[in-house]
Amino acid sequence: MRIVDIIIKKRDGGVLSEEEIRFFIEGYVKGEITDYQASALAMTIFFQGMNKKEIAILTDAMEHSGEVMDLSSIKGIKVDKHSTGGVGDKTSLVLGPMVAACGAKVAKMSGRGLGHTGGTLDKLESIPGLTIAVSDHDFIDQVNDIGIAIVGQTAELVPADKKMYALRDVTGTVESVPLIASSVMSKKLASGSDTILLDVTFGEGAFMKNIDAARELAKVMVEIGKSLNRNTKAVLSDMNEPLGFAVGNALEVKEAIDALHGRGPKDLMELCYTCGAIMLEQAQIVKTKEEGKKMLEEAIQSGRAFDKFVAMVKAQKGDVSYILDPSKFPVSKHVVDIVSDQGGYIYSINALEIGEGSMKLGAGRATMKDTIDMSAGIVLSKKVGDFVKKGEKLCTIYTNKEDFDLVLQEIKSAFKISDKVVKTHPVVWEIVE
Amino acid sequence: MRIVDIIIKKRDGGVLSEEEIRFFIEGYVKGEITDYQASALAMTIFFQGMNKKEIAILTDAMEHSGEVMDLSSIKGIKVDKHSTGGVGDKTSLVLGPMVAACGAKVAKMSGRGLGHTGGTLDKLESIPGLTIAVSDHDFIDQVNDIGIAIVGQTAELVPADKKMYALRDVTGTVESVPLIASSVMSKKLASGSDTILLDVTFGEGAFMKNIDAARELAKVMVEIGKSLNRNTKAVLSDMNEPLGFAVGNALEVKEAIDALHGRGPKDLMELCYTCGAIMLEQAQIVKTKEEGKKMLEEAIQSGRAFDKFVAMVKAQKGDVSYILDPSKFPVSKHVVDIVSDQGGYIYSINALEIGEGSMKLGAGRATMKDTIDMSAGIVLSKKVGDFVKKGEKLCTIYTNKEDFDLVLQEIKSAFKISDKVVKTHPVVWEIVE
Repeated sequence: MRIVDIIIKKRDGGVLSEEEIRFFIEGYVKGEITDYQASALAMTIFFQGMNKKEIAILTDAMEHSGEVMDLSSIKGIKVDKHSTGGVGDKTSLVLGPMVAACGAKVAKMSGRGLGHTGGTLDKLESIPGLTIAVSDHDFIDQVNDIGIAIVGQTAELVPADKKMYALRDVTGTVESVPLIASSVMSKKLASGSDTILLDVTFGEGAFMKNIDAARELAKVMVEIGKSLNRNTKAVLSDMNEPLGFAVGNALEVKEAIDALHGRGPKDLMELCYTCGAIMLEQAQIVKTKEEGKKMLEEAIQSGRAFDKFVAMVKAQKGDVSYILDPSKFPVSKHVVDIVSDQGGYIYSINALEIGEGSMKLGAGRATMKDTIDMSAGIVLSKKVGDFVKKGEKLCTIYTNKEDFDLVLQEIKSAFKISDKVVKTHPVVWEIVE
Repeated sequence: MRIVDIIIKKRDGGVLSEEEIRFFIEGYVKGEITDYQASALAMTIFFQGMNKKEIAILTDAMEHSGEVMDLSSIKGIKVDKHSTGGVGDKTSLVLGPMVAACGAKVAKMSGRGLGHTGGTLDKLESIPGLTIAVSDHDFIDQVNDIGIAIVGQTAELVPADKKMYALRDVTGTVESVPLIASSVMSKKLASGSDTILLDVTFGEGAFMKNIDAARELAKVMVEIGKSLNRNTKAVLSDMNEPLGFAVGNALEVKEAIDALHGRGPKDLMELCYTCGAIMLEQAQIVKTKEEGKKMLEEAIQSGRAFDKFVAMVKAQKGDVSYILDPSKFPVSKHVVDIVSDQGGYIYSINALEIGEGSMKLGAGRATMKDTIDMSAGIVLSKKVGDFVKKGEKLCTIYTNKEDFDLVLQEIKSAFKISDKVVKTHPVVWEIVE
């Protein structure tokens, strides 16, 4: 078997056999297949696609390219939720404690941010002392003890995806449903939870620019999960504007704490309640989403969700005093308001531009080598649909950098204002199950 | 400018600017752009194509990626002919001396064979003593003195093509009109002749499997040549069956000598007369192809074409005694006839299978590192359309290898025999000018 023949077969519209797909993944991980052949094959998959069977085999081959987590020693149904990426997306920090407070087991391995999207691990690390490097043994113990752990990957999970993702990023082969689906699902399957809820984002700040593309991706991923015997569902959520008000690591942690106190932004809470209700259903804790939502509301109102977050921070050696008194988080040297040049209704707040602006203020990485300024970021004062007066504040930027004038202008231009009343939508557009 | 953005632009159907194309070629030759990005871009070009302007710019950028030959010190119009590859194609060895005998200047840089196609340099080197490593200075002197030289490339011509070609070969990106056209034309332009005649082959033994694909490629290349101010024409020739009877280096040289004595196979001579007449027109030696053909026939009949070949071999230090007495060429240890199991008309002789069979007998290279057995190969006894009796000879194989039974069977299966009379076509189907 030669990889060039496999490339030509897919290039000419053929369906790859299980043997061919496994030959590629195994050979690529071993270094027997070169990067230039892998990128050529990825580009043929971009153009020719893959059928359901091919994607399921690709996902399975990637999942088993390294170690696979065994969470069987955690009692109960382990739930997991994964977002395909967004701006201001602190959902895991709020939703995790909420569902854990209702009895679901949250054994979550999370990722770091790159480009305009933030990562849950980076956000957690803005809490002084908190570690995301937890051994498999301690990770399992923590979930058994308190019901939740959000950590970095310890074992060598899915090395095929690490190589493929780095390659796709620089070869124009990111935006391919079979490649995104197999990347996401191989990681989720390898990390060992029983149920998977996918938050497939669409819009300016997401991979998928429109809901049709998001629906296609969601359906493919749900199908893969089901074919590999995992309870898998998906929500399609709007990522045209940032989620909530805060964008940037410590700023988002503070917003998450507010949310756990019952003072969360409307869009963030809607997403958390919708996702949480599905997860409780998947965990067989509730029979209907309505029942789930009530249980989640009670977890917030009673303070039990907040307590779970505190317990998790404590278990992962974070300084709980910051959680109890968020005013302790350091504030950037420069705190500057951006005001509107005109009055009107906020028509759009481009999430991609806000995410990139936040990154340039120090809150994110352009490459994996960059370090993050935990205090940097943007806090919106308005959301889409809100009315703004001329001279009124649109947002506040936080940075320790000195040359931020150009970035200010870019952030300002992310806001589009209309004379007319702007109709708004809920965040979650559809559920795919 | 980032190469990933250029890949994405072409992937999404965009037209690349001159700046973008030159950025790619220059960066790739310098090693600043990686093989995995070049292969991804090549695959987008395979799928999305390029317009005429893009191909002309790509060709020009490749041509100027290294040195460019200056043949201005050769008096008269320098003609060049290039085939896109075939089996049994000894045309240059016959055609070169023919047109040189009529006064055209043949300053030819040729290539080596790979896979099922043979290379003119390898064939020439089967003549004992003959060197294809001639300095630029001696090359120019030789063409001024005797009107013809066929040599290997001396200067570092078109390094971009060397890198791209090696990459395309292993990444499934060979069969792309813009990439084939820019590869061929950049080399032809850099080697400095005034006129270019392209023999674009089609059929089993060629890159282009049918005449429509060949015509498209020919038109694109002729257009590029014209846009860069070279007199460029093309013929479309049939490469379903091998050209002539002999396949293999010394075997083909012997057939070329026969042809120069006026005893050439019908198809080879037809191709040489058609191409030669066009080249004499391009060299402004004749006004019409009919006039050209007469002049070429006279060059063969008078022995002047043969004399040119002898002069060239002598100038390049080859042992002329072999040319004067071809029975001196060493004969392989094993000379085995393959006979027909049935009577009938030869319906097809698969050139690809004959070329691969010849390679396996020792006449060609599977990779550039392999060495060639000059005496090995195949001599057909029949051509398409001929009648063969049961038990009559189809061809003779020549090899110094011992295990050739399997190869014999493969070669035999290249012949397809029909009960009915088979209609034959001329070799040259069309002229594109």
